[in-house]
Amino acid sequence: MNGAEAALRTLAGGGVDVCFANPGTSEMHAVAALDAVPAMRGVLGLFEGVVTGAADGYGRMAGRPAATLLHLGPGFGNGIANLHNAGKARTGIVNLVGDHAGPHKGLDAPLESDIDGIVGSVSGWVRTPRRAEDVGPAVAAAVAAASGSPAEIATVILRADAAWSEGGSEAVVHTPAPPRQVDGERIEAIAKRIARGDRVGFLLGGGALTEPGLAAAGRLVAGGAPYFMETFPARVARGAGRVAIERLGYFAEQATEQLAGVEVLVLADAADPVSFFAYPGRPSRLAPVGCDVVALSRPGDDAEAALETLADLVAPGTTPDVAPFDPPARPTGALDAVTIAAAIGATLPEGAIVSDEAVTSGAFCAPLTANAAPHDWLALTGGAIGDGLPVAVGAAVARSDRRVLALEADGSAMYTIQALWTMARESLDVTVVLFSNHRYAILELEMDRVGAAGEHPKARSLLSLDNPPIDAVALARGFGVPAERAADAAHLADLLERSYATAGPTLIDVVL
Amino acid sequence: MNGAEAALRTLAGGGVDVCFANPGTSEMHAVAALDAVPAMRGVLGLFEGVVTGAADGYGRMAGRPAATLLHLGPGFGNGIANLHNAGKARTGIVNLVGDHAGPHKGLDAPLESDIDGIVGSVSGWVRTPRRAEDVGPAVAAAVAAASGSPAEIATVILRADAAWSEGGSEAVVHTPAPPRQVDGERIEAIAKRIARGDRVGFLLGGGALTEPGLAAAGRLVAGGAPYFMETFPARVARGAGRVAIERLGYFAEQATEQLAGVEVLVLADAADPVSFFAYPGRPSRLAPVGCDVVALSRPGDDAEAALETLADLVAPGTTPDVAPFDPPARPTGALDAVTIAAAIGATLPEGAIVSDEAVTSGAFCAPLTANAAPHDWLALTGGAIGDGLPVAVGAAVARSDRRVLALEADGSAMYTIQALWTMARESLDVTVVLFSNHRYAILELEMDRVGAAGEHPKARSLLSLDNPPIDAVALARGFGVPAERAADAAHLADLLERSYATAGPTLIDVVL
Repeated sequence: MNGAEAALRTLAGGGVDVCFANPGTSEMHAVAALDAVPAMRGVLGLFEGVVTGAADGYGRMAGRPAATLLHLGPGFGNGIANLHNAGKARTGIVNLVGDHAGPHKGLDAPLESDIDGIVGSVSGWVRTPRRAEDVGPAVAAAVAAASGSPAEIATVILRADAAWSEGGSEAVVHTPAPPRQVDGERIEAIAKRIARGDRVGFLLGGGALTEPGLAAAGRLVAGGAPYFMETFPARVARGAGRVAIERLGYFAEQATEQLAGVEVLVLADAADPVSFFAYPGRPSRLAPVGCDVVALSRPGDDAEAALETLADLVAPGTTPDVAPFDPPARPTGALDAVTIAAAIGATLPEGAIVSDEAVTSGAFCAPLTANAAPHDWLALTGGAIGDGLPVAVGAAVARSDRRVLALEADGSAMYTIQALWTMARESLDVTVVLFSNHRYAILELEMDRVGAAGEHPKARSLLSLDNPPIDAVALARGFGVPAERAADAAHLADLLERSYATAGPTLIDVVL
Repeated sequence: MNGAEAALRTLAGGGVDVCFANPGTSEMHAVAALDAVPAMRGVLGLFEGVVTGAADGYGRMAGRPAATLLHLGPGFGNGIANLHNAGKARTGIVNLVGDHAGPHKGLDAPLESDIDGIVGSVSGWVRTPRRAEDVGPAVAAAVAAASGSPAEIATVILRADAAWSEGGSEAVVHTPAPPRQVDGERIEAIAKRIARGDRVGFLLGGGALTEPGLAAAGRLVAGGAPYFMETFPARVARGAGRVAIERLGYFAEQATEQLAGVEVLVLADAADPVSFFAYPGRPSRLAPVGCDVVALSRPGDDAEAALETLADLVAPGTTPDVAPFDPPARPTGALDAVTIAAAIGATLPEGAIVSDEAVTSGAFCAPLTANAAPHDWLALTGGAIGDGLPVAVGAAVARSDRRVLALEADGSAMYTIQALWTMARESLDVTVVLFSNHRYAILELEMDRVGAAGEHPKARSLLSLDNPPIDAVALARGFGVPAERAADAAHLADLLERSYATAGPTLIDVVL
């Protein structure tokens, strides 16, 4: 078999059986090999940011990596932004990126690029097998790296001659090591700080935001200790029956207020909190001055187990309070940020997966779904706009048994709007709520906050999307996705319920 | 003034007065500074690939660089593909990419990235001023690098604190050195090869494809010597009154046949020709075995002057044959690759700028415009798909006195379809002909050519765009661009003429 087939067989044998792809000529042998490897599903994206964002969404919901297939350095470049987000989410991904045949390198052909530089900028692990024989082992090692704890963005640069030459074979993927167990002394030291009455707060992220992790946190903080999740979690279990957790505010002054008075901040798979951006004259770190910041678990540790052990020490035999099922009433009246969120909370189906890139317009969606049916929530982890729709694609591929709800701001949607077509092509059960405020509202806010306020007609114009207004319904139909515009809050609730009852994707445009 | 204002004043003072932008929070001071620098025009793109591709198109037509404004490492990542194309076109561009404030670096905030790695992969010149005082000089040096011979992709990483701090000042941009003159001995040596009767061929690229450069080439080859242009020129003068030049074929076997029998291949600002991709068992280099490949001029040299000097030596006092004005007749009948091209050739307005990313569907467009009204033709230089519409944007901004015609394949259009919105926002005189064949036809061809032929239903499906078919008219209208679908060839000619007579953009969908 050739190297390309060896790559795909190794992936499939290692449990990586979905490949999001936007290939070109140098990847044609890998495309052809799809037919030799029936277990491998190829999912086409019209743009590489869709491909890499979908792999992120898939990994977050499947708990195992997807593969991508990308076209040389520039194609990989188009995927960098969502690989950045995936890296911040610690989603494992196996990228196969084609490159010129070895003898063609160095001839400065048009698509010759600094592929090592482009790939290396966002990959935690890179290998370039030179011969067909080397491809299987390289891919097997990539799958292991992408499946490890913490998971890596692992990239195999697949040169065309390594792909087309005979001599390849399927390599066995070694079972990755499980997450590390946190040292008992570390846990006991934290328990002692709690026992002696220090004001201990908790910040949860990553693998701590599962249902068991949150249940343990709920036992820990039953006495009233403050606890938060990181602002943009990769995935958090929410809704009825789960321990509710407040997110740390996006704006530094919110977060500072939330953490005020905390003497010991315990991090469970979360980073020492810093503001998203720096602002003139304000500190970047958010924990109070003098606060001890202590890691209970670090990325790659078993955060759930550490929280459970700590809860057993501090609050043995207790059970946590969980959110009751108490969704908002179906709203009526005009569409605004609150009635839109109420319509979403009132209708959210059990087991929904919410991909949230609604930015300012979605401010009320999280609070008004806190007591909705149980669901998972996926946030924009790395701040690189344009992951909401692709993540929804990947989540829907990973969990065809569940409905995906993408909450998407219009400005953000425009980075990777091509994702709609993949939703249609694959008949994915995705409901997109598109918040059309026709401006970069977050930037209008931030412009004032960074101290650049004042009369700036040219600058303000550069933050406006209303000339011409983008017609999201037309765009969706252009990509083959049925679309409607909500007239008012009751209509929105009706459209949401209708979409949940209908197989395949729907876009609902909500003009604010 | 703060560093951001110093950056914009330095740009404008150096003749860089257009900034294509997709900014975020870290660039808000640069956005605000637009109002302090009235000479600077800010042009918003909804996606960074639009921004960088527009800067490429602008540079190709204005002959001086545009600036871009991009949002940290991931935003720059989204612009890499079209910066790759710009680099291959040797278009000078000044990128301003925001980054976190210095003290915020190293805190692993969500948007922290390997910005040096991302930026360095496609920039020929990079600087990171740390203080407001350093910004003006850094930007001045970037403008000089982007205006030099050869021109560079020059990137200034503008940290937020360098942008917002006071202490900046406008720096003077030093006039770049003119293109180097080619050594007379080099030219004479080539003249001798011609005089002694060697079979000399010419390959022209880059700065040799101007009207004067082609005129000199036409004098040189009057005796029948073969001469070609590189396959994907950044810009070539074509049509009535210009010396016609055949392009070197895309497929290696075409090019090999074109160059057969050449004993000396003279390169005028072109690279030693190699095939676009490697194919199993075939050589990458295209010149005949044993052929001497000799550079008359290299990038950064004055290619026009070198060709003129050589022509004066070889063919003194001659004038070249130029293409007559003899456009094809207005076609009738069904739409196919030939009738579409005939409609374009029959109606092409004088001075049109053609941005060509029509790939397979546009095969007849170049031959059927060879005797149309004089025009410039801009090709996809680097093979990174998705530059056709953005380049059209930039060309239209650079030359508002001329009509831009974008010949765009549907698959290619989908990488940067957001460019349509900027055309509408800026009321750019762009006519887009969208070739909707609903497939990646080039990849269907290439799949067979790389030896991956055979029955591959899964693979073939991954090259198909017809499930669902993309409705380009709906997409255009969604982005605010008037759009029509051509019913037949006569209707297409009518729609083209109507678009040329109407200010602002139009998209014409042509279903093949």
